[in-house]
Amino acid sequence: MERQNAGRIRLGMVGGGRDAFIGGVHRMAARLDDQFELVAGCFSATAEKSQASGADLGLDPDRVYDDFADMAQREARLKQGIEAVAIVTPNHMHYPAAREFLKRGIHVICDKPLTAALPEAKRMLQAAQRSEALFILTHNYSGYPMVRQAREMVAAGELGQLRVVQVEYPQDWLTEALETTGAKQAEWRTDPARSGAGGSIGDIGTHAYHLAGFVSGLQLEALCADLQSFVPGRRVDDNAHVLLRYVGGARGMLWSSQVAPGNENALRLRVYGDKGGLSWAQEEPNTLWHSPFGEPPRRLTRGNAGAGAAAARVTRIPAGHPEGYLEGFATLYTEAAAAIRAHAAGAPVPPEVIYPTVEDGLAGVAFVEACVRSSDRGGVWVKPAA
Amino acid sequence: MERQNAGRIRLGMVGGGRDAFIGGVHRMAARLDDQFELVAGCFSATAEKSQASGADLGLDPDRVYDDFADMAQREARLKQGIEAVAIVTPNHMHYPAAREFLKRGIHVICDKPLTAALPEAKRMLQAAQRSEALFILTHNYSGYPMVRQAREMVAAGELGQLRVVQVEYPQDWLTEALETTGAKQAEWRTDPARSGAGGSIGDIGTHAYHLAGFVSGLQLEALCADLQSFVPGRRVDDNAHVLLRYVGGARGMLWSSQVAPGNENALRLRVYGDKGGLSWAQEEPNTLWHSPFGEPPRRLTRGNAGAGAAAARVTRIPAGHPEGYLEGFATLYTEAAAAIRAHAAGAPVPPEVIYPTVEDGLAGVAFVEACVRSSDRGGVWVKPAA
Amino acid sequence: MERQNAGRIRLGMVGGGRDAFIGGVHRMAARLDDQFELVAGCFSATAEKSQASGADLGLDPDRVYDDFADMAQREARLKQGIEAVAIVTPNHMHYPAAREFLKRGIHVICDKPLTAALPEAKRMLQAAQRSEALFILTHNYSGYPMVRQAREMVAAGELGQLRVVQVEYPQDWLTEALETTGAKQAEWRTDPARSGAGGSIGDIGTHAYHLAGFVSGLQLEALCADLQSFVPGRRVDDNAHVLLRYVGGARGMLWSSQVAPGNENALRLRVYGDKGGLSWAQEEPNTLWHSPFGEPPRRLTRGNAGAGAAAARVTRIPAGHPEGYLEGFATLYTEAAAAIRAHAAGAPVPPEVIYPTVEDGLAGVAFVEACVRSSDRGGVWVKPAA
Amino acid sequence: MERQNAGRIRLGMVGGGRDAFIGGVHRMAARLDDQFELVAGCFSATAEKSQASGADLGLDPDRVYDDFADMAQREARLKQGIEAVAIVTPNHMHYPAAREFLKRGIHVICDKPLTAALPEAKRMLQAAQRSEALFILTHNYSGYPMVRQAREMVAAGELGQLRVVQVEYPQDWLTEALETTGAKQAEWRTDPARSGAGGSIGDIGTHAYHLAGFVSGLQLEALCADLQSFVPGRRVDDNAHVLLRYVGGARGMLWSSQVAPGNENALRLRVYGDKGGLSWAQEEPNTLWHSPFGEPPRRLTRGNAGAGAAAARVTRIPAGHPEGYLEGFATLYTEAAAAIRAHAAGAPVPPEVIYPTVEDGLAGVAFVEACVRSSDRGGVWVKPAA
Repeated sequence: MERQNAGRIRLGMVGGGRDAFIGGVHRMAARLDDQFELVAGCFSATAEKSQASGADLGLDPDRVYDDFADMAQREARLKQGIEAVAIVTPNHMHYPAAREFLKRGIHVICDKPLTAALPEAKRMLQAAQRSEALFILTHNYSGYPMVRQAREMVAAGELGQLRVVQVEYPQDWLTEALETTGAKQAEWRTDPARSGAGGSIGDIGTHAYHLAGFVSGLQLEALCADLQSFVPGRRVDDNAHVLLRYVGGARGMLWSSQVAPGNENALRLRVYGDKGGLSWAQEEPNTLWHSPFGEPPRRLTRGNAGAGAAAARVTRIPAGHPEGYLEGFATLYTEAAAAIRAHAAGAPVPPEVIYPTVEDGLAGVAFVEACVRSSDRGGVWVKPAA
Repeated sequence: MERQNAGRIRLGMVGGGRDAFIGGVHRMAARLDDQFELVAGCFSATAEKSQASGADLGLDPDRVYDDFADMAQREARLKQGIEAVAIVTPNHMHYPAAREFLKRGIHVICDKPLTAALPEAKRMLQAAQRSEALFILTHNYSGYPMVRQAREMVAAGELGQLRVVQVEYPQDWLTEALETTGAKQAEWRTDPARSGAGGSIGDIGTHAYHLAGFVSGLQLEALCADLQSFVPGRRVDDNAHVLLRYVGGARGMLWSSQVAPGNENALRLRVYGDKGGLSWAQEEPNTLWHSPFGEPPRRLTRGNAGAGAAAARVTRIPAGHPEGYLEGFATLYTEAAAAIRAHAAGAPVPPEVIYPTVEDGLAGVAFVEACVRSSDRGGVWVKPAA
Repeated sequence: MERQNAGRIRLGMVGGGRDAFIGGVHRMAARLDDQFELVAGCFSATAEKSQASGADLGLDPDRVYDDFADMAQREARLKQGIEAVAIVTPNHMHYPAAREFLKRGIHVICDKPLTAALPEAKRMLQAAQRSEALFILTHNYSGYPMVRQAREMVAAGELGQLRVVQVEYPQDWLTEALETTGAKQAEWRTDPARSGAGGSIGDIGTHAYHLAGFVSGLQLEALCADLQSFVPGRRVDDNAHVLLRYVGGARGMLWSSQVAPGNENALRLRVYGDKGGLSWAQEEPNTLWHSPFGEPPRRLTRGNAGAGAAAARVTRIPAGHPEGYLEGFATLYTEAAAAIRAHAAGAPVPPEVIYPTVEDGLAGVAFVEACVRSSDRGGVWVKPAA
Repeated sequence: MERQNAGRIRLGMVGGGRDAFIGGVHRMAARLDDQFELVAGCFSATAEKSQASGADLGLDPDRVYDDFADMAQREARLKQGIEAVAIVTPNHMHYPAAREFLKRGIHVICDKPLTAALPEAKRMLQAAQRSEALFILTHNYSGYPMVRQAREMVAAGELGQLRVVQVEYPQDWLTEALETTGAKQAEWRTDPARSGAGGSIGDIGTHAYHLAGFVSGLQLEALCADLQSFVPGRRVDDNAHVLLRYVGGARGMLWSSQVAPGNENALRLRVYGDKGGLSWAQEEPNTLWHSPFGEPPRRLTRGNAGAGAAAARVTRIPAGHPEGYLEGFATLYTEAAAAIRAHAAGAPVPPEVIYPTVEDGLAGVAFVEACVRSSDRGGVWVKPAA
């Protein structure tokens, strides 16, 4: 998957300064396949902090900004200005930042969830639709080869008609009131103003929801949610139980939690149809279990017999040499690069190039909004906003 | 756990003839610790079939019956008549059979669920309360040593205050319409007249529900259920999704399914509190995962360091030599024997002797009834009948 | 696998008194399928201890002995005397005890290893060959259904020509000098006079060696062993490393250890041929991994698709309801019963009835002797005595 | 672990052209933490192929060579010439290539094994010792965080005195005669002239051997090896069984195989001492099992409670987000960068910076030579050349 001779795409970044987490992940992901070169950034709204972060990264100080609108404006004018920007701020800043770049035709690679609230998500969709630029949402778990394999198998009918989807994403890092101890990540992720009305359901439930749809191809019809904030004083949910009804009759369950001791990032998806079942777990991402009904379960692995074209396309190294989180994340960057290169050539994005879109992002925010709405009403069935 | 010198308890059986499944399990379980001797049975309502089954088992033909009321009557009059009876018929026969023995003071060991319908379950409770005899319900998973260990740890506060209970019991054997092929087990288990209004939720969901309560000690307050019959023509649910609200604020999810390819008897329980989590799976029953919050997860095993008194009491062989389903089932028989011997001595059942009761059985049937009621109304929150 | 009407076989026991371990296992195993009834025993050479043990078990005091030769003599004369005897003493007593019963035509079910030393093992072979009675050696792991499955698959050529056998049996219970603390099991198992010259290699290495041969069908040609006694003062090996050369060119490695912390009874066998591989672990005995070369690995489970006739024959309960150590052990008793019944009818033992023989036992003792000999000479290649 | 402001180190590469495997791995590893920039290469001895590969990678054609000596000479003269070179050719070219750079003071990052044969390995040691430049050998498994954790725990005495080391590295990709089908990787790796006299033992056995020593800190005293070429016509071993005796009395077993169906890169290390055991497997690299004797086993994970300073130092992302093979490999590059920067500053390499050295490489080649020598003599105990 290494770059083949076409030159690196010039990348900027908004957010991701010294005390951030996801910014560094995006940078490693962007570097791995050598498709991008980070050349500009607005790492903080405080000039000194932004410059310090830019200096850490070896950037030209002239291209380190403390205002993203200013960055968008000036980069758009540069002959060798950025072609794409990674938005890695807290959720509530995604839209204000992205809009500045979109309206100047700079491609946006945006962290999830799309926005903190539904109205902004709709505006993001409009902004993206009005723009010539591409919009890539980093639901990074969709970059894992064996997730691609699962999607391909479902689409090929190997499970038959789908009946049941079980998806869960438990963590334990918010079991105690970490947000009161000065931990930045915990602070903003439990602050409705920055994170949105969903806590666990917004932060990780959206990943689970996206993964389920990405693999199954199913569309949500209605849901019934029971959200809890178990930790005293917490302003957003830290545990979410959701029943799902999909168009066509399949049923599902989704569980997200940040108060389940012993769970790190235990995202797990199981899909069952009338011909077979699949099971995949993020913490062992190189394996996909396939159980054709009436036959012994098979352990499919990345890079080996049983892994098809969709997985092979995004596989870097041989079977048994585990690829991990960064590689899956990098795949989205490499997909973004392929899309951007096609776009630059005036060609459509090739069908095998797959990444989560702004529409997926809107669906995710609508999902969170529906969960909160259902739960606020006592756990009734609701439909997500169209 | 072998018998120590007190003589075997004389046991009868109702049901469990040649083409049954659970009858043989009960017999093996009753034999393992040598506490019981099967001496009489009504294995079928057809005389020849009952006699043939009795002959297979080496019983005296005079004590093989084709009518359970007759059996109860005659055994009650014998000097060396049965002291206890195992009821292993389809669900709808549990009450009619048990009542005959209870009213004659013969202890009843009854398979689950207690009855096919709620009114009968209430009558069973009354019959048991009116009787001097003991009533043991074989929710056999409560006999596994590491389930006892989990219960003991929760009770000792090792998880702190409980917050979340995730329990599931998926199978795959009814993925297709097996009940139309002449398979006896599938026939009666999908027949509402014999099995009850619950399909998967009655057959295995009750096990999951009981296990969750047995370990957590939590009481159900309300539930919201979405039941499906995915297989065309099936008259009972084959997949059940249930949200749980426990008294005191804990929340739970329960999933039972008989249409999830790749799952055999994948009963799994996870319980989380503010100090730690536990995870146990029936297919690897000798292991219990304990994750104290902020410490590495520990793999506790039957018979080894970390397993306490409650597990040790029901452990037969050393760590690493797996005990399985029959041993767990046998433990309930051995608990029953301990209770019966205490009863015979006019003593109370010792507190360490633990088995599911008729009250547990009523709660299980009320749970099933509530699930069906909730789902029939479109998936609303309901309270189980008291 | 329950008894079908033929009456129980009368069983005696030598050894297995109150402070023993394996005696209780034999009794549970003998009971499970209801083929045997324990009616006599010599549980100790001390009369009071033997009587106390017999009383625990509800035996007629007249049939509880303190001298096995006396027991053999008297039982042989009884009209309803024992038909078979289980020998569950320390190793050095196997031969003296077994010989008394063999010469009186009483079938012997003997714990492993066959004897403490090679000369006795040869005498045991002769005694068994001279006797009309059957001899069954309880290498109990050969009773697990998925071990039978593995054996059947190898025999059917599913692995092609065998190349490599990896077998290991690590434990940790002798990591410290437990034998100096009064622990009976540790005492005799580390005492060369009672256990034999092999420590771990005799106690558990023989199980591993037997299992490898049972499944692979390969014959040992030569071995090279490096035995160690890591615990100061220990008189027998507590760790054994052995290289194996099989007739026909396959190669193997065998590791036994009683000083490997974290291992309970981690017997594991892997067999590789030019068409595929198999892997089985005693602590998860219901699963067998099959990896046909160039295809995804398959998880075969007891009672489910992929398990063939040999496994089905010794399976009691459905897939996903784990059978464990006692069930596998019980299978050897049930095989013994089938053989004894055939013998009583003057018929040959049916070919599907499989149990380890006195010849297997001799091979095991010869293996231990060869390991000790090889190691004593500095780790040279030696051939086991024919 | 991202670069902090110091500028990238200029890197060249020898080998790693279009049809290679490990070259791409080195490039991704070098990029991940942004410490290196690839600026020159001799990707093939054929000018066109080298240029084509260089063009793929976006290199300046003037800095793409077809002769490594020429490359070394010219780069050494450039003001902005390479500071380090990655040698990723087949084994027999490691020394001829490395020597050219070493003698010009260019740091060498060399793939394993050090050389194809022992005499060359000794010359490599001399060349490295005579050079001012650093020498880093990419036994990449030593870069995994939980391998660092294991090493740190052993060094801290958490296992007590070591007794037993079990290490294995089975694969299956050479189960058939792949080298006769035109597969480049199989061709050179089974060609003694390019790979060395060891087949599996040289290609992967050296990894296993290095890992065992890296974690345990033990020194090999003697070994006894039984090597086989199971595939007809194969000129090197494809399966190796080795007994190990370490200085101080610990014992070990090493198994490498390329004909074990179902194994991908199943490198696994287990180390046991008198206080506890550790187990680590390359295919689940984020987990380390720690079994303190007499306590429940603990599952230590990268980035979480129980992982200490040595692991934390080389950890990029949070627990539960798996790091894989490339990240472990990248760690060696980042260690190399730290060493190179210290060297450039005239400072010693900091003690926490850890990478395999030329001495480790010589020990590895001596190990292979000793295995071949032992096996050729029929499997006798030999000492590796000092």
